[in-house]
Amino acid sequence: MARWEPDARARLANAALDLYLERGFEQTTVTDIAQRAGVTERTFFRHFADKREVLFDGTNALQSGVLEAIATAQDGNAFDIAGRALVAGSAFLEERGEFAGRRTRAILANPELHERELLKLARLSTAIAEALHDRGTPTGAARLAAQAAVAAFSAGFERWSGAGTSATLAESIEAALAEMRGIVGTA
Amino acid sequence: MARWEPDARARLANAALDLYLERGFEQTTVTDIAQRAGVTERTFFRHFADKREVLFDGTNALQSGVLEAIATAQDGNAFDIAGRALVAGSAFLEERGEFAGRRTRAILANPELHERELLKLARLSTAIAEALHDRGTPTGAARLAAQAAVAAFSAGFERWSGAGTSATLAESIEAALAEMRGIVGTA
Repeated sequence: MARWEPDARARLANAALDLYLERGFEQTTVTDIAQRAGVTERTFFRHFADKREVLFDGTNALQSGVLEAIATAQDGNAFDIAGRALVAGSAFLEERGEFAGRRTRAILANPELHERELLKLARLSTAIAEALHDRGTPTGAARLAAQAAVAAFSAGFERWSGAGTSATLAESIEAALAEMRGIVGTA
Repeated sequence: MARWEPDARARLANAALDLYLERGFEQTTVTDIAQRAGVTERTFFRHFADKREVLFDGTNALQSGVLEAIATAQDGNAFDIAGRALVAGSAFLEERGEFAGRRTRAILANPELHERELLKLARLSTAIAEALHDRGTPTGAARLAAQAAVAAFSAGFERWSGAGTSATLAESIEAALAEMRGIVGTA
Protein backbone atom coordinates (compact mmCIF):
# COMPACT_ATOMS: atom_id res chain seq x y z
CA MET A 1 0.00 0.00 0.00
CA ALA A 2 2.75 2.45 -0.96
CA ARG A 3 1.36 5.91 -1.36
CA TRP A 4 2.11 7.79 -4.52
CA GLU A 5 5.32 9.78 -4.10
CA PRO A 6 6.00 12.21 -6.91
CA ASP A 7 9.76 12.61 -7.34
CA ALA A 8 10.52 10.81 -4.09
CA ARG A 9 13.91 9.83 -5.49
CA ALA A 10 14.94 13.38 -6.31
CA ARG A 11 13.54 14.68 -3.02
CA LEU A 12 15.50 12.04 -1.10
CA ALA A 13 18.72 12.89 -2.96
CA ASN A 14 18.31 16.60 -2.28
CA ALA A 15 17.42 16.05 1.36
CA ALA A 16 20.45 13.78 1.84
CA LEU A 17 22.81 16.26 0.24
CA ASP A 18 21.41 19.15 2.30
CA LEU A 19 21.98 17.17 5.49
CA TYR A 20 25.50 16.01 4.50
CA LEU A 21 26.48 19.63 3.94
CA GLU A 22 24.71 20.91 7.05
CA ARG A 23 25.86 18.38 9.62
CA GLY A 24 28.24 16.01 7.84
CA PHE A 25 27.84 12.60 6.21
CA GLU A 26 28.69 10.60 9.35
CA GLN A 27 26.21 12.53 11.46
CA THR A 28 23.29 11.95 9.08
CA THR A 29 21.07 8.88 9.36
CA VAL A 30 18.66 7.39 6.83
CA THR A 31 15.89 8.30 9.29
CA ASP A 32 16.97 11.95 9.11
CA ILE A 33 16.99 11.87 5.32
CA ALA A 34 13.57 10.24 5.01
CA GLN A 35 12.12 12.70 7.51
CA ARG A 36 13.53 15.71 5.69
CA ALA A 37 12.19 14.40 2.38
CA GLY A 38 8.81 13.67 3.92
CA VAL A 39 8.80 9.95 3.09
CA THR A 40 9.25 6.75 5.07
CA GLU A 41 12.56 4.93 5.57
CA ARG A 42 11.08 2.11 3.56
CA THR A 43 10.74 4.48 0.63
CA PHE A 44 14.39 5.45 1.05
CA PHE A 45 15.44 1.81 0.79
CA ARG A 46 13.23 1.26 -2.22
CA HIS A 47 15.38 3.81 -4.03
CA PHE A 48 18.86 3.46 -2.51
CA ALA A 49 20.88 0.64 -0.94
CA ASP A 50 22.41 2.91 1.69
CA LYS A 51 23.09 6.56 2.45
CA ARG A 52 26.32 6.53 0.45
CA GLU A 53 24.67 5.35 -2.74
CA VAL A 54 22.47 8.46 -2.85
CA LEU A 55 25.51 10.34 -4.12
CA PHE A 56 26.54 7.74 -6.70
CA ASP A 57 23.27 7.24 -8.42
CA GLY A 58 24.43 9.39 -11.33
CA THR A 59 27.74 7.54 -11.61
CA ASN A 60 25.93 4.27 -12.24
CA ALA A 61 23.68 5.84 -14.88
CA LEU A 62 26.72 7.52 -16.44
CA GLN A 63 28.48 4.21 -16.81
CA SER A 64 25.55 2.60 -18.66
CA GLY A 65 25.29 5.54 -21.03
CA VAL A 66 29.02 5.59 -21.74
CA LEU A 67 29.19 1.86 -22.45
CA GLU A 68 26.25 2.09 -24.81
CA ALA A 69 27.91 4.98 -26.66
CA ILE A 70 31.14 2.97 -27.03
CA ALA A 71 29.31 -0.06 -28.33
CA THR A 72 27.64 1.96 -31.08
CA ALA A 73 30.55 4.35 -31.87
CA GLN A 74 32.07 4.78 -35.30
CA ASP A 75 35.58 3.45 -35.74
CA GLY A 76 38.39 5.67 -34.56
CA ASN A 77 41.15 6.18 -32.07
CA ALA A 78 40.42 4.55 -28.69
CA PHE A 79 40.99 7.74 -26.68
CA ASP A 80 38.61 9.64 -28.97
CA ILE A 81 35.95 6.98 -28.75
CA ALA A 82 36.18 6.92 -24.95
CA GLY A 83 36.15 10.72 -24.76
CA ARG A 84 33.14 11.12 -27.03
CA ALA A 85 31.31 8.37 -25.13
CA LEU A 86 31.93 10.17 -21.83
CA VAL A 87 30.50 13.36 -23.30
CA ALA A 88 27.45 11.54 -24.68
CA GLY A 89 26.90 9.42 -21.56
CA SER A 90 27.04 12.41 -19.22
CA ALA A 91 24.56 14.56 -21.17
CA PHE A 92 21.80 13.77 -18.66
CA LEU A 93 23.91 15.45 -15.94
CA GLU A 94 23.86 18.76 -17.78
CA GLU A 95 20.70 19.94 -16.02
CA ARG A 96 22.01 18.91 -12.58
CA GLY A 97 24.73 21.51 -12.24
CA GLU A 98 23.62 22.87 -8.91
CA PHE A 99 23.26 19.39 -7.42
CA ALA A 100 26.65 18.37 -8.85
CA GLY A 101 28.41 21.32 -7.26
CA ARG A 102 26.98 20.58 -3.84
CA ARG A 103 27.70 16.87 -4.31
CA THR A 104 31.38 17.59 -5.06
CA ARG A 105 31.61 19.68 -1.88
CA ALA A 106 30.04 16.90 0.23
CA ILE A 107 32.36 14.27 -1.26
CA LEU A 108 35.53 16.30 -0.75
CA ALA A 109 34.51 16.95 2.87
CA ASN A 110 34.41 13.24 3.75
CA PRO A 111 37.37 10.87 3.19
CA GLU A 112 35.12 7.82 3.01
CA LEU A 113 32.99 9.40 0.27
CA HIS A 114 36.09 10.61 -1.53
CA GLU A 115 37.48 7.06 -1.57
CA ARG A 116 34.17 5.78 -2.89
CA GLU A 117 34.29 8.38 -5.68
CA LEU A 118 37.82 7.33 -6.67
CA LEU A 119 36.78 3.69 -6.74
CA LYS A 120 33.71 4.44 -8.84
CA LEU A 121 35.89 6.30 -11.34
CA ALA A 122 38.39 3.41 -11.37
CA ARG A 123 35.53 1.01 -12.09
CA LEU A 124 34.20 3.27 -14.82
CA SER A 125 37.66 3.24 -16.35
CA THR A 126 37.87 -0.57 -16.20
CA ALA A 127 34.42 -0.89 -17.79
CA ILE A 128 35.39 1.51 -20.59
CA ALA A 129 38.62 -0.42 -21.18
CA GLU A 130 36.64 -3.65 -21.50
CA ALA A 131 34.17 -2.03 -23.91
CA LEU A 132 37.05 -0.71 -26.05
CA HIS A 133 38.65 -4.14 -25.96
CA ASP A 134 35.37 -5.68 -27.15
CA ARG A 135 35.65 -3.43 -30.21
CA GLY A 136 39.13 -4.74 -30.94
CA THR A 137 41.51 -2.41 -29.08
CA PRO A 138 44.33 -4.44 -27.48
CA THR A 139 43.94 -4.75 -23.68
CA GLY A 140 46.90 -2.57 -22.72
CA ALA A 141 46.03 0.25 -25.10
CA ALA A 142 42.37 0.07 -24.08
CA ARG A 143 43.29 0.54 -20.43
CA LEU A 144 45.57 3.49 -21.10
CA ALA A 145 43.00 5.19 -23.35
CA ALA A 146 40.24 4.63 -20.78
CA GLN A 147 42.29 5.97 -17.87
CA ALA A 148 43.38 9.08 -19.74
CA ALA A 149 39.83 9.76 -20.92
CA VAL A 150 38.31 9.25 -17.45
CA ALA A 151 40.96 11.55 -15.92
CA ALA A 152 39.99 14.23 -18.43
CA PHE A 153 36.28 13.62 -17.86
CA SER A 154 36.77 13.94 -14.12
CA ALA A 155 38.72 17.21 -14.49
CA GLY A 156 36.09 18.62 -16.86
CA PHE A 157 33.25 17.54 -14.59
CA GLU A 158 34.88 19.12 -11.56
CA ARG A 159 35.52 22.40 -13.34
CA TRP A 160 31.94 22.51 -14.60
CA SER A 161 30.43 21.67 -11.21
CA GLY A 162 32.61 24.21 -9.43
CA ALA A 163 31.59 27.84 -9.33
CA GLY A 164 32.67 30.35 -11.92
CA THR A 165 32.32 28.67 -15.29
CA SER A 166 29.70 29.40 -17.89
CA ALA A 167 30.72 26.42 -20.03
CA THR A 168 28.35 23.47 -20.39
CA LEU A 169 29.41 20.08 -19.05
CA ALA A 170 30.03 18.84 -22.60
CA GLU A 171 32.25 21.85 -23.33
CA SER A 172 34.18 21.40 -20.09
CA ILE A 173 34.86 17.72 -20.77
CA GLU A 174 35.87 18.45 -24.36
CA ALA A 175 38.25 21.17 -23.17
CA ALA A 176 39.84 18.77 -20.68
CA LEU A 177 40.17 16.06 -23.35
CA ALA A 178 41.92 18.57 -25.62
CA GLU A 179 44.15 19.64 -22.73
CA MET A 180 45.05 16.01 -22.06
CA ARG A 181 46.03 15.62 -25.72
CA GLY A 182 48.21 18.69 -25.52
CA ILE A 183 49.92 17.61 -22.32
CA VAL A 184 50.58 13.99 -23.19
CA GLY A 185 50.89 14.30 -26.92
CA THR A 186 53.74 16.79 -27.24
CA ALA A 187 57.26 15.55 -26.65
CA MET B 1 65.45 -6.48 25.09
CA ALA B 2 64.67 -6.98 21.40
CA ARG B 3 66.83 -9.69 19.97
CA TRP B 4 68.75 -8.96 16.81
CA GLU B 5 66.59 -9.83 13.80
CA PRO B 6 68.47 -9.83 10.54
CA ASP B 7 66.09 -8.86 7.75
CA ALA B 8 63.02 -9.25 9.95
CA ARG B 9 61.15 -6.79 7.74
CA ALA B 10 61.82 -8.71 4.54
CA ARG B 11 61.10 -12.03 6.25
CA LEU B 12 57.78 -10.68 7.54
CA ALA B 13 56.80 -9.38 4.11
CA ASN B 14 57.62 -12.69 2.45
CA ALA B 15 55.84 -14.70 5.14
CA ALA B 16 52.75 -12.49 4.84
CA LEU B 17 52.64 -12.80 1.07
CA ASP B 18 53.09 -16.59 1.22
CA LEU B 19 50.17 -16.86 3.62
CA TYR B 20 47.91 -14.49 1.63
CA LEU B 21 48.47 -16.63 -1.44
CA GLU B 22 48.12 -19.94 0.41
CA ARG B 23 45.03 -19.28 2.49
CA GLY B 24 43.80 -15.80 1.54
CA PHE B 25 44.26 -12.35 3.05
CA GLU B 26 41.15 -12.52 5.26
CA GLN B 27 42.14 -15.88 6.70
CA THR B 28 45.62 -14.76 7.72
CA THR B 29 46.29 -13.16 11.12
CA VAL B 30 49.29 -11.14 12.28
CA THR B 31 50.02 -14.02 14.67
CA ASP B 32 50.27 -16.39 11.69
CA ILE B 33 52.61 -14.04 9.88
CA ALA B 34 54.91 -13.50 12.86
CA GLN B 35 55.01 -17.24 13.50
CA ARG B 36 55.87 -18.07 9.91
CA ALA B 37 58.62 -15.42 9.91
CA GLY B 38 59.94 -16.68 13.23
CA VAL B 39 59.53 -13.36 15.06
CA THR B 40 57.16 -12.00 17.70
CA GLU B 41 53.96 -10.09 16.98
CA ARG B 42 55.62 -7.12 18.62
CA THR B 43 58.30 -7.23 15.96
CA PHE B 44 55.59 -7.28 13.29
CA PHE B 45 54.07 -4.12 14.69
CA ARG B 46 57.46 -2.43 14.93
CA HIS B 47 57.64 -2.73 11.15
CA PHE B 48 54.04 -2.50 9.93
CA ALA B 49 50.88 -0.78 11.14
CA ASP B 50 48.65 -3.70 10.11
CA LYS B 51 48.58 -6.72 7.84
CA ARG B 52 47.45 -4.67 4.86
CA GLU B 53 50.39 -2.27 5.04
CA VAL B 54 52.85 -5.13 4.48
CA LEU B 55 51.89 -5.00 0.82
CA PHE B 56 52.10 -1.22 0.48
CA ASP B 57 55.47 -0.63 1.99
CA GLY B 58 56.98 -0.21 -1.47
CA THR B 59 54.25 2.20 -2.57
CA ASN B 60 55.15 4.61 0.23
CA ALA B 61 58.86 4.43 -0.60
CA LEU B 62 58.03 4.86 -4.29
CA GLN B 63 56.12 8.05 -3.58
CA SER B 64 59.02 9.64 -1.66
CA GLY B 65 61.46 8.79 -4.45
CA VAL B 66 59.17 10.11 -7.17
CA LEU B 67 58.54 13.41 -5.39
CA GLU B 68 62.25 13.93 -4.84
CA ALA B 69 62.93 13.27 -8.52
CA ILE B 70 60.28 15.81 -9.53
CA ALA B 71 61.67 18.45 -7.18
CA THR B 72 65.15 18.13 -8.69
CA ALA B 73 64.11 17.55 -12.35
CA GLN B 74 65.28 19.70 -15.25
CA ASP B 75 62.62 21.84 -16.84
CA GLY B 76 60.39 20.19 -19.39
CA ASN B 77 56.93 18.99 -20.23
CA ALA B 78 54.92 18.01 -17.12
CA PHE B 79 54.03 14.52 -18.42
CA ASP B 80 57.72 13.86 -19.20
CA ILE B 81 58.85 15.07 -15.80
CA ALA B 82 56.27 12.88 -14.05
CA GLY B 83 57.15 9.88 -16.24
CA ARG B 84 60.89 10.17 -15.69
CA ALA B 85 60.35 10.65 -11.95
CA LEU B 86 58.26 7.46 -11.80
CA VAL B 87 61.05 5.56 -13.56
CA ALA B 88 63.70 6.98 -11.22
CA GLY B 89 61.61 6.57 -8.06
CA SER B 90 60.79 2.94 -8.81
CA ALA B 91 64.38 1.86 -9.49
CA PHE B 92 64.63 0.23 -6.05
CA LEU B 93 61.79 -2.13 -7.05
CA GLU B 94 63.82 -3.52 -9.93
CA GLU B 95 65.32 -6.30 -7.79
CA ARG B 96 61.96 -7.26 -6.30
CA GLY B 97 60.42 -8.74 -9.42
CA GLU B 98 59.48 -12.05 -7.91
CA PHE B 99 57.91 -10.41 -4.86
CA ALA B 100 56.07 -7.92 -7.08
CA GLY B 101 54.53 -10.67 -9.18
CA ARG B 102 53.22 -12.53 -6.14
CA ARG B 103 52.05 -9.25 -4.60
CA THR B 104 50.00 -8.42 -7.71
CA ARG B 105 48.37 -11.87 -7.54
CA ALA B 106 47.50 -11.42 -3.86
CA ILE B 107 46.05 -7.95 -4.48
CA LEU B 108 43.91 -8.97 -7.43
CA ALA B 109 42.56 -11.92 -5.39
CA ASN B 110 41.12 -9.66 -2.67
CA PRO B 111 38.70 -6.78 -3.39
CA GLU B 112 39.70 -4.93 -0.21
CA LEU B 113 43.38 -5.03 -1.17
CA HIS B 114 42.54 -4.07 -4.73
CA GLU B 115 40.66 -1.01 -3.49
CA ARG B 116 43.60 -0.08 -1.28
CA GLU B 117 45.92 -0.34 -4.29
CA LEU B 118 43.68 1.95 -6.37
CA LEU B 119 43.57 4.49 -3.56
CA LYS B 120 47.34 4.41 -3.09
CA LEU B 121 47.76 5.07 -6.82
CA ALA B 122 45.22 7.90 -6.66
CA ARG B 123 47.18 9.43 -3.78
CA LEU B 124 50.44 9.03 -5.64
CA SER B 125 48.84 10.84 -8.55
CA THR B 126 47.63 13.68 -6.31
CA ALA B 127 51.08 14.02 -4.72
CA ILE B 128 52.73 14.13 -8.16
CA ALA B 129 50.25 16.77 -9.32
CA GLU B 130 51.09 18.90 -6.28
CA ALA B 131 54.82 18.51 -6.88
CA LEU B 132 54.37 19.53 -10.53
CA HIS B 133 52.27 22.48 -9.43
CA ASP B 134 55.04 23.52 -7.02
CA ARG B 135 57.34 23.76 -10.05
CA GLY B 136 54.91 26.06 -11.81
CA THR B 137 52.59 23.78 -13.80
CA PRO B 138 49.00 25.06 -13.57
CA THR B 139 46.82 22.91 -11.27
CA GLY B 140 44.58 21.45 -13.98
CA ALA B 141 47.43 20.52 -16.31
CA ALA B 142 49.45 19.10 -13.40
CA ARG B 143 46.59 16.78 -12.46
CA LEU B 144 46.08 15.54 -16.01
CA ALA B 145 49.81 14.96 -16.51
CA ALA B 146 50.08 13.12 -13.18
CA GLN B 147 47.09 10.89 -13.85
CA ALA B 148 48.25 9.95 -17.33
CA ALA B 149 51.78 9.22 -16.08
CA VAL B 150 50.57 7.13 -13.13
CA ALA B 151 48.26 5.16 -15.42
CA ALA B 152 51.24 4.39 -17.66
CA PHE B 153 53.45 3.55 -14.67
CA SER B 154 50.82 1.18 -13.36
CA ALA B 155 50.46 -0.57 -16.72
CA GLY B 156 54.24 -0.88 -17.08
CA PHE B 157 54.63 -2.15 -13.53
CA GLU B 158 51.93 -4.76 -14.02
CA ARG B 159 53.40 -5.99 -17.29
CA TRP B 160 56.85 -6.24 -15.71
CA SER B 161 55.62 -8.02 -12.59
CA GLY B 162 53.54 -10.46 -14.60
CA ALA B 163 55.14 -13.54 -16.11
CA GLY B 164 56.62 -13.59 -19.59
CA THR B 165 58.58 -10.37 -20.02
CA SER B 166 62.34 -10.02 -20.07
CA ALA B 167 62.16 -6.22 -19.96
CA THR B 168 63.38 -4.37 -16.89
CA LEU B 169 60.88 -2.35 -14.84
CA ALA B 170 62.34 0.89 -16.23
CA GLU B 171 61.94 -0.38 -19.81
CA SER B 172 58.37 -1.50 -19.14
CA ILE B 173 57.37 1.86 -17.69
CA GLU B 174 59.06 3.74 -20.54
CA ALA B 175 57.26 1.56 -23.08
CA ALA B 176 53.92 2.28 -21.40
CA LEU B 177 54.65 6.02 -21.28
CA ALA B 178 55.44 5.94 -25.01
CA GLU B 179 52.27 3.95 -25.64
CA MET B 180 50.26 6.53 -23.69
CA ARG B 181 51.74 9.28 -25.87
CA GLY B 182 50.81 7.38 -29.00
CA ILE B 183 47.26 6.70 -27.86
CA VAL B 184 46.39 10.13 -26.52
CA GLY B 185 48.58 12.24 -28.75
CA THR B 186 47.32 11.23 -32.19
CA ALA B 187 44.08 12.70 -33.38
